[in-house]
Amino acid sequence: MYIIDSNRNSFVPGARQSEFPLQNLPYGIFSTATQPSPRAGVAIGNRVLDLALLAREGWLPCLPAEIFSQASLNALAATGRDAWTSLRETLAGLLEEGSSLAEDPIREQALIPLQDCTLHLPFLISEYTDFYASRNHAYNCGVLFRGPDNALPPNWMHMPIAYNGRASSIVVSGTPVRRPNGQLPPGETGMPAWEPTKTLDFELEVGVFIGTGTELGEPLEADSAEAHIFGLVLLNDWSARDVQRWEYVPLGPFQSKAFASSISPWVVPLDALEPASVELPAQNPPVLPYLQTRRHRSFDIGLTVQIQPSGGKPVTVSTSNVRHLYWSFAQQIAHHTSGGCNLRTGDLLGSGTISGTTPDSLGCLLEMSKNGTQPLSLADDVHRRFLEDGDSVTFNGSASVNGLKIGFGQVSGQILPANHLSSKITQTGSINSIK
Amino acid sequence: MYIIDSNRNSFVPGARQSEFPLQNLPYGIFSTATQPSPRAGVAIGNRVLDLALLAREGWLPCLPAEIFSQASLNALAATGRDAWTSLRETLAGLLEEGSSLAEDPIREQALIPLQDCTLHLPFLISEYTDFYASRNHAYNCGVLFRGPDNALPPNWMHMPIAYNGRASSIVVSGTPVRRPNGQLPPGETGMPAWEPTKTLDFELEVGVFIGTGTELGEPLEADSAEAHIFGLVLLNDWSARDVQRWEYVPLGPFQSKAFASSISPWVVPLDALEPASVELPAQNPPVLPYLQTRRHRSFDIGLTVQIQPSGGKPVTVSTSNVRHLYWSFAQQIAHHTSGGCNLRTGDLLGSGTISGTTPDSLGCLLEMSKNGTQPLSLADDVHRRFLEDGDSVTFNGSASVNGLKIGFGQVSGQILPANHLSSKITQTGSINSIK
Repeated sequence: MYIIDSNRNSFVPGARQSEFPLQNLPYGIFSTATQPSPRAGVAIGNRVLDLALLAREGWLPCLPAEIFSQASLNALAATGRDAWTSLRETLAGLLEEGSSLAEDPIREQALIPLQDCTLHLPFLISEYTDFYASRNHAYNCGVLFRGPDNALPPNWMHMPIAYNGRASSIVVSGTPVRRPNGQLPPGETGMPAWEPTKTLDFELEVGVFIGTGTELGEPLEADSAEAHIFGLVLLNDWSARDVQRWEYVPLGPFQSKAFASSISPWVVPLDALEPASVELPAQNPPVLPYLQTRRHRSFDIGLTVQIQPSGGKPVTVSTSNVRHLYWSFAQQIAHHTSGGCNLRTGDLLGSGTISGTTPDSLGCLLEMSKNGTQPLSLADDVHRRFLEDGDSVTFNGSASVNGLKIGFGQVSGQILPANHLSSKITQTGSINSIK
Repeated sequence: MYIIDSNRNSFVPGARQSEFPLQNLPYGIFSTATQPSPRAGVAIGNRVLDLALLAREGWLPCLPAEIFSQASLNALAATGRDAWTSLRETLAGLLEEGSSLAEDPIREQALIPLQDCTLHLPFLISEYTDFYASRNHAYNCGVLFRGPDNALPPNWMHMPIAYNGRASSIVVSGTPVRRPNGQLPPGETGMPAWEPTKTLDFELEVGVFIGTGTELGEPLEADSAEAHIFGLVLLNDWSARDVQRWEYVPLGPFQSKAFASSISPWVVPLDALEPASVELPAQNPPVLPYLQTRRHRSFDIGLTVQIQPSGGKPVTVSTSNVRHLYWSFAQQIAHHTSGGCNLRTGDLLGSGTISGTTPDSLGCLLEMSKNGTQPLSLADDVHRRFLEDGDSVTFNGSASVNGLKIGFGQVSGQILPANHLSSKITQTGSINSIK
């Protein structure tokens, strides 16, 4: 672990007041108009430090230079925790006031204005697992569909339940999200409809990127699970609720959550969040030993959700926090490997929607609008049951540590109208192509 | 499409009588003791044609040589259907009687005895999706758990339902499979147990490997879906039924199917199976237009399941067929992309367990033993409700085409005892590590 003392300052102007002070140093993949090859960078203030350039010029001798010139962080993440620590220490030293880099002319080239950078997906994501680890969220959804007496599934208190999500459709913040078509539950005709979803929702989550993988058949002890975490991102797991309701029994969500999941571009190292660690309440009923940890903890990371209707102003509709998890990241990882399933570098583990206990801290519209029955007011004459075309949804997240802000950058996406359906697809009466 | 006339013969002795005649030409990844780099090969008779060597020596000018010297078929599969056709034509010409290769001394080096080859996973598998496309299987499972009146879930007749499986734990035939530990449903204490699964099962499936991927947000029309299939493999989707029963509501199977899935090493091209095409019965109720195809078809591929107890003889316990699918591969792919989800080269799509209508054609022990209530007799004093440690399970599969056998090689795996649980894990009473 390498925590950067909060008194230290970067020579980059304004860094200390930004969400990317010297104490954060999140990793990302970026490119520029003049140099369009995606490569590794670190956010500092309103700049991106070009790690590929620094490595090429010999400033990062701790690791092979080619690790930084790739289009993903996978090679860097695979080097393991000791290497991450050592690199973080090196970078803090280089970016500090009075460093050798501060005095070197290369700093002009190496520190690129954030506004001139295109940010890409930080990892080549092998697989994506989505947990359901916030008790408030699971309870609220359960009440809506099964009533308060059977709100939580019987297994919920005994394990961090999860499903395998779809990794190919994960996109970086800023990518528009097209409203999906899908099968909607049958109405009076008894036949399902094929239509654009009517109940498009966001889900406020954080995601953990796995750095070093595990071996098949070798479960992790819960206490050693966190050592495999490279860092955290914000995650919006867009969901088509009507499609989900019709498809999810008995095999779980499939197309309802496969059209897009958005993540923030900056991966905040676990070490940067260490000072924001918070103890979680003891779990009752007690969990099985394979899920027990010496430190049952989460992080005090404030989260906000804004919805901006097309042509309107952004409205903050929720304020939640990563501390509202029942199952810790360590428990999620331990359970994931408990049957012998191996993890790989670049696997993304979503927390599931994170909701607090109050009406202004809910993590999705399904909860906020009580499944569409109580529309949310965004302005005098603007209401939402679910998302409409043109809406933009933006999550922000940051921890406050000794007066410093450890931020994620935002994850944002605007809803595009559904694809026009071809005549073949819309002729729902036609069965001429069936033999 | 390139179908190799059944009158043509390979110069490799015995090829015509084997499951790898000139008309098959399945692709795989292999290595040898003298040359341990995994590389691409094609099975012909009891030989493996070394494509990396041939390409290096200029015999395969149609594609860049480096495509064949990689440890997966991904680069080859990404070249697309026209390139696959052209390569298949070239290979058939080279392996035919009287070909230039038949007369060249390089043939000795290029045709390696199959028994000297180590076979590897053929693809770097991005993601694994498992369908539930056999009506008999879905019905039988439904009867066991919900009775005959509610056997099929309401959505089943309207879409090929599926879940995202776990790709990291897919292994090649021959890899032992360790019995997983997992949470078993609560008994009288009300607390789940943490134990090795008591109900370990196989699932008889075939898998489709995606060759060329699709773009995010661009659903495939069902009639163009098959063009994305590189080929088929046999698939054993090992399952821990007790773990599955406890975990699967509401998010679907997770750890119960994440400890291992085994595939056969040879990927049989769709073109090789074209002559085994069989029309499927019309679907009733009619399917939505996006699932309609001009050719509603499957393939007449016979499948067998053998169980061999440790120290015993293999016993054939099932004879099924890929024609017992309700939802075609084209429909599976069309549904998978229907909401805009993109596919990538190397994605594996499992059919789900394929069961026929008779008791001797069932695809898993859950069905055969009626959830353990009617043990299966393997020999006079050998019975199975579910798999026991030391059991080997082997699937074989082949199509008969004009007297020729188009085979897959087998997929086989032996069950190892569960990992010994560490004392920390077994002290189920201990909660000293919880704060």
